[in-house]
Amino acid sequence: MWLMGEFELLARVRERLPAAGPRLRLGSGDDAAVTMPGGATATSVDAAVDGVHFHRECASLPQIGHKALATALSDLAAMGAEPGEAYVTLGVPCDLDEDGCMELLDGMVALAEATGTALAGGDVTRAEELFLAIAVVGHAETPNSLVTRAGARPGDALVLTGEVGGARAGLALLEDAGLEPAAGEDARHLRERQLEPRPRLAAGRALARAGATAMIDLSDGLGGDGLHLAEQSGVGLRIDGEAVPVAAGAARILAVAGEDGLQRALEGGEDYELLAAIPRGRLAHARRAVHDREGIALTTIGEAVEGEGVEIKLPGDRILKPRRGFDQLA
Amino acid sequence: MWLMGEFELLARVRERLPAAGPRLRLGSGDDAAVTMPGGATATSVDAAVDGVHFHRECASLPQIGHKALATALSDLAAMGAEPGEAYVTLGVPCDLDEDGCMELLDGMVALAEATGTALAGGDVTRAEELFLAIAVVGHAETPNSLVTRAGARPGDALVLTGEVGGARAGLALLEDAGLEPAAGEDARHLRERQLEPRPRLAAGRALARAGATAMIDLSDGLGGDGLHLAEQSGVGLRIDGEAVPVAAGAARILAVAGEDGLQRALEGGEDYELLAAIPRGRLAHARRAVHDREGIALTTIGEAVEGEGVEIKLPGDRILKPRRGFDQLA
Repeated sequence: MWLMGEFELLARVRERLPAAGPRLRLGSGDDAAVTMPGGATATSVDAAVDGVHFHRECASLPQIGHKALATALSDLAAMGAEPGEAYVTLGVPCDLDEDGCMELLDGMVALAEATGTALAGGDVTRAEELFLAIAVVGHAETPNSLVTRAGARPGDALVLTGEVGGARAGLALLEDAGLEPAAGEDARHLRERQLEPRPRLAAGRALARAGATAMIDLSDGLGGDGLHLAEQSGVGLRIDGEAVPVAAGAARILAVAGEDGLQRALEGGEDYELLAAIPRGRLAHARRAVHDREGIALTTIGEAVEGEGVEIKLPGDRILKPRRGFDQLA
Repeated sequence: MWLMGEFELLARVRERLPAAGPRLRLGSGDDAAVTMPGGATATSVDAAVDGVHFHRECASLPQIGHKALATALSDLAAMGAEPGEAYVTLGVPCDLDEDGCMELLDGMVALAEATGTALAGGDVTRAEELFLAIAVVGHAETPNSLVTRAGARPGDALVLTGEVGGARAGLALLEDAGLEPAAGEDARHLRERQLEPRPRLAAGRALARAGATAMIDLSDGLGGDGLHLAEQSGVGLRIDGEAVPVAAGAARILAVAGEDGLQRALEGGEDYELLAAIPRGRLAHARRAVHDREGIALTTIGEAVEGEGVEIKLPGDRILKPRRGFDQLA
């Protein structure tokens, strides 16, 4: 009887999907969705699994849907692509009913509408545990207008959108209610950073147009993702840890939680901010463009140098040297 | 330590990926894959979950990989699209090691190479149970050169590629070794139909070019999928059950298994053959093209009529009338 339910669920899903995107010629309900891309496409897939990427007891269903789509779209942001279509596969355990699936979808629909993404198709299946697998397609005029991780050159400035550490502190708050007093007024914002990350799509496009030479989104943290960018560009990254904007309250809460507050804030993943390399002559323009389009700051936090590896300078002359597989949080 | 493993696994996966496809500008390893589609795209996502779509005790790991990609590509076949890129998300339980993941991948790589599909990206995550979520992108010159489920007109002939019932009989054999004597020489072929379906990509393109007005692949069976095509085209389908080619031995084995052999063969899903509607004047051309390109027969099994619903005429004047949710097998 599951599949009787699947048909009905898919019908309900389709009713709730937002209006088609500009490139979508045929949406959900046939063997495949049909689009007319016109130019280059950037495609990425991302999975979110209960107990690995989220915990149903800590996040609402709309938040789980939101975050799964947000993390997928964040990869498009890191390419400087315009979001186009998303295709959602849902693995539904027996303790999640149809209304629950609709709530998950609500979180996705809201973010899809806010970002101009068409939810163009999907699949629903029974599963032991809740999982979401999301494929996203972004667009650009030409392949060269997309920014890879591989183009940073020695001398490029290293820039960061927004602030880091908030998602890590938010996770600590969700895991330990005893930290609440230390968080005070920052608690809500920090939890939001963990549960409802915003893909920096407008900032990513602004950075691409401003001439960013390499870009990556911070899912694994400044150290781990910085290392990807360094390795794929064949450069070293030198980061001034004290220049990195840290979310209000994050270092304090992580310190109360018994960790080195600043270090953990810098290492903590899931902020989904963008780290980019850009020629120094383009910095002022990039900063203005990111502020105008995304409403957040772009901060210079270091530079690309000849060599390899990432070094993050901390107070007291300590140097953090992330390695492969370094402090991945999810 | 999982993620240490994830990095290494992804590196091993990338080494084994086949050469890039004609539209692929940047493959796995960056935030997103970059393609230049040039024309219309058809995109579909499909999931395969252990215990739902396959059983690890019945299928080898390469077969599981093969079938997951095959069922996704089958949706492109049903659009008449040329296969382009595939993006694979793997949920890996703790009892599947890296070598096991490579075996899964081997099954996908072999089918990708055989069909000209580029494995362009993916994601790997820890999970309680093995799952595969595959997004496939196919290409065509224009949206109108793709065939939806919605264009069948009264008077169109209803045609079927290959034979049905084999996958259902193969499943019965896998579930009950006691059926083996009844299967005799047919056993191997029938098990293959269940475990290693072939997406009818060449036949799908041939049917699209020959003028098919509507098309669907048989994942849920002739009744269930016929109903989708009928509903979306706004026609009725009248099928002569005795004209439907049934895989050798399938009806016999299903009869021994205590079922109405012919009826179960017709209803059984997972054959991944194509059901299409086509104007009668194009029949001879379509038959030749499907034979030349896919090496299989195209059989006329009925027609589209004014009205609604699907009726399958069985021997002894019995009429099978599938309804929504009818006899879905997976």
